[in-house]
Amino acid sequence: MQAFNQKKASILQEIGGNSSDSPDASPKGTIDSLCLPIIEVINSHPDMVTTSSCSGRVSVFLEGIKKESQIGAKGNEGRWLFVTHHPEDLPQWHKKLDLKYEEPQSMEDSQRYILFKFEPLILHVKCRDLATSNLLYSTAMGCGFRESGIGSNNIVGIRTSIKLDVPIGCLDGEQLVSFVSESYLELITKLSLDRFTENFKKMDTLKNAITSMGQAKVPDAKETKEERRIRKMKEGMARRDGVREEKEKKKREKELLQSQEQKQEKS
Amino acid sequence: MQAFNQKKASILQEIGGNSSDSPDASPKGTIDSLCLPIIEVINSHPDMVTTSSCSGRVSVFLEGIKKESQIGAKGNEGRWLFVTHHPEDLPQWHKKLDLKYEEPQSMEDSQRYILFKFEPLILHVKCRDLATSNLLYSTAMGCGFRESGIGSNNIVGIRTSIKLDVPIGCLDGEQLVSFVSESYLELITKLSLDRFTENFKKMDTLKNAITSMGQAKVPDAKETKEERRIRKMKEGMARRDGVREEKEKKKREKELLQSQEQKQEKS
Repeated sequence: MQAFNQKKASILQEIGGNSSDSPDASPKGTIDSLCLPIIEVINSHPDMVTTSSCSGRVSVFLEGIKKESQIGAKGNEGRWLFVTHHPEDLPQWHKKLDLKYEEPQSMEDSQRYILFKFEPLILHVKCRDLATSNLLYSTAMGCGFRESGIGSNNIVGIRTSIKLDVPIGCLDGEQLVSFVSESYLELITKLSLDRFTENFKKMDTLKNAITSMGQAKVPDAKETKEERRIRKMKEGMARRDGVREEKEKKKREKELLQSQEQKQEKS
Repeated sequence: MQAFNQKKASILQEIGGNSSDSPDASPKGTIDSLCLPIIEVINSHPDMVTTSSCSGRVSVFLEGIKKESQIGAKGNEGRWLFVTHHPEDLPQWHKKLDLKYEEPQSMEDSQRYILFKFEPLILHVKCRDLATSNLLYSTAMGCGFRESGIGSNNIVGIRTSIKLDVPIGCLDGEQLVSFVSESYLELITKLSLDRFTENFKKMDTLKNAITSMGQAKVPDAKETKEERRIRKMKEGMARRDGVREEKEKKKREKELLQSQEQKQEKS
C-alpha cells in the first residue's frame, strides 16, 4: 500500500517538473496538452497514476540506413520528417517537405521508406492493486479500447486500433520521393483528421467513464452477500456510464454484424 | 480447477469439430492452418487453451454505405474484396479485381473507401490461473509481442504491431477505383510479404518459448523465501530461452551479413 503511494508521489513530482528545460524520456519531452484532462482525472483517483501517455498523433518517418529488409528501421539516420499531436497543425504538412513526385522505381530491401502514420491515444496506468486494474481494464474495454490489457505490476495498457500506416515514399540519394500524388497525400490528411475526431471522442468517453468509476473494493471475508450485491451493482453502473454512449453508436451498426471484421475471432 | 478443465475440454472438442461443413463464428469458419503448430503447443500445456487466433493476413475491404464519416464501416454492403493468410496467394491479387486507376476526386464523408491491411498474428489464450497468465504474458512480451495484455477471466491477448493500413481507393457508382498506381499496389504487396516473413519468424520464436516455458507455480503460503527464489529463477530461465533464441538468430544474421560485406569488399 505504502509502496504505491510513494511511487505515485514520485511520478507526480516528476510530471510536474517536466518542461522544455527539463524534458521527460519521450521525443517530445513533456506530456501532450490534449492528454492533460484525462490524466488529471486518472491521477486524482487514489488508486491510479499514469506512467506514460500519448494523446494521438500523425507522424511521417524516414527509415534509417539498412542492409536488408527491416520494417520501420529506427536508428542509423532514421528521422522524423513531421510529427503533430494537434489536428490544426496537420493541413499542408507535405508543403513543408521538399518532395519529388515519382512512381516507385525499385523494390530493393535496402530501400529507406517514408512511413505516414496515424496513431491513436495510448495510456499506461499503474494501479494500486489487481482489483483496480481489473476495474480500469473493463471500463476501457467498455469504452471501445478493445486492445487494452493488464501487464506486469498492475499496469493497465489502454489501446485502440484507429490507425493509418501508409508507406508514402522513399529516399533517393538526398531527395525525398513521394510514390503517391499530392491529392492522395491530401486524402490521407483528411482521413487522419477524421481519425483525430474519432480519437478525441473516445478519449472523452473514457474520461467520463473513469470520472464516475469510483474505487474498486477489494473483496474481503467480511463482505456479506448483500454487500457484494450492492458493490457489484455500483461497479456495473459506473462502467455502464461509459459503455452507454458507445452502445448507442453500436446500435446503429447492429444489423451489420454479419460481415464484422473478426479481430477477436479466428479469421 | 475443475471449471477450467471442463472449459478446455469443450473448447478442444469444438475446435476439432469445425470444418467447412460445420464452421466456427469467424468469416473463414476454421482455424488458419499456419496457426496450428503454435496452437498445438499451447493446448498441450495443462494450464492453457486458445480461445481465438489469426495467423496474420492481408485483407482488402470495401467500406459499407455510410451517411457520415465512419471509419472502416463494416456493415451495410461492406465487403471483403480479397483476403489471404498465405503469402504465396498474395502476388497479383489486384489483377483479380476490376480496378480503374484514377486520382482521388472527392473527399465527401459518405465516400466508401477501399482499405488495404496487413494484420499480424493475434492469439487469445485462456489460462487456468493468474500465475499462468502472468507467465504467458511475460513470455510473449519477451518475444517482442509488445502490445500483449491480460484481460478478464485470465485470458491473455497476444498482439504485436507489424501493420499496414492503407486506403487505396473508393467505390465510384459501381466501379472500384484505385487512387494509387499499379506499381504502388505492387510495392505494398512486396512490403506485406516482408511483414509476413517477420510475422512468421516471431510466431516461431513464441512457439519455442512457450514449448520450454513449463508450468507456473501458484505461490502459496507454504512457499519459503528460498523456494520463491528458485521458482522465480526457473521462470526467468524459461522466458530467456525464447529471448535467447531470438538474439542468437539476430546475431547469426548479423555475422552472415558482415561476412558477406567483407567478401564484397575483398572482391
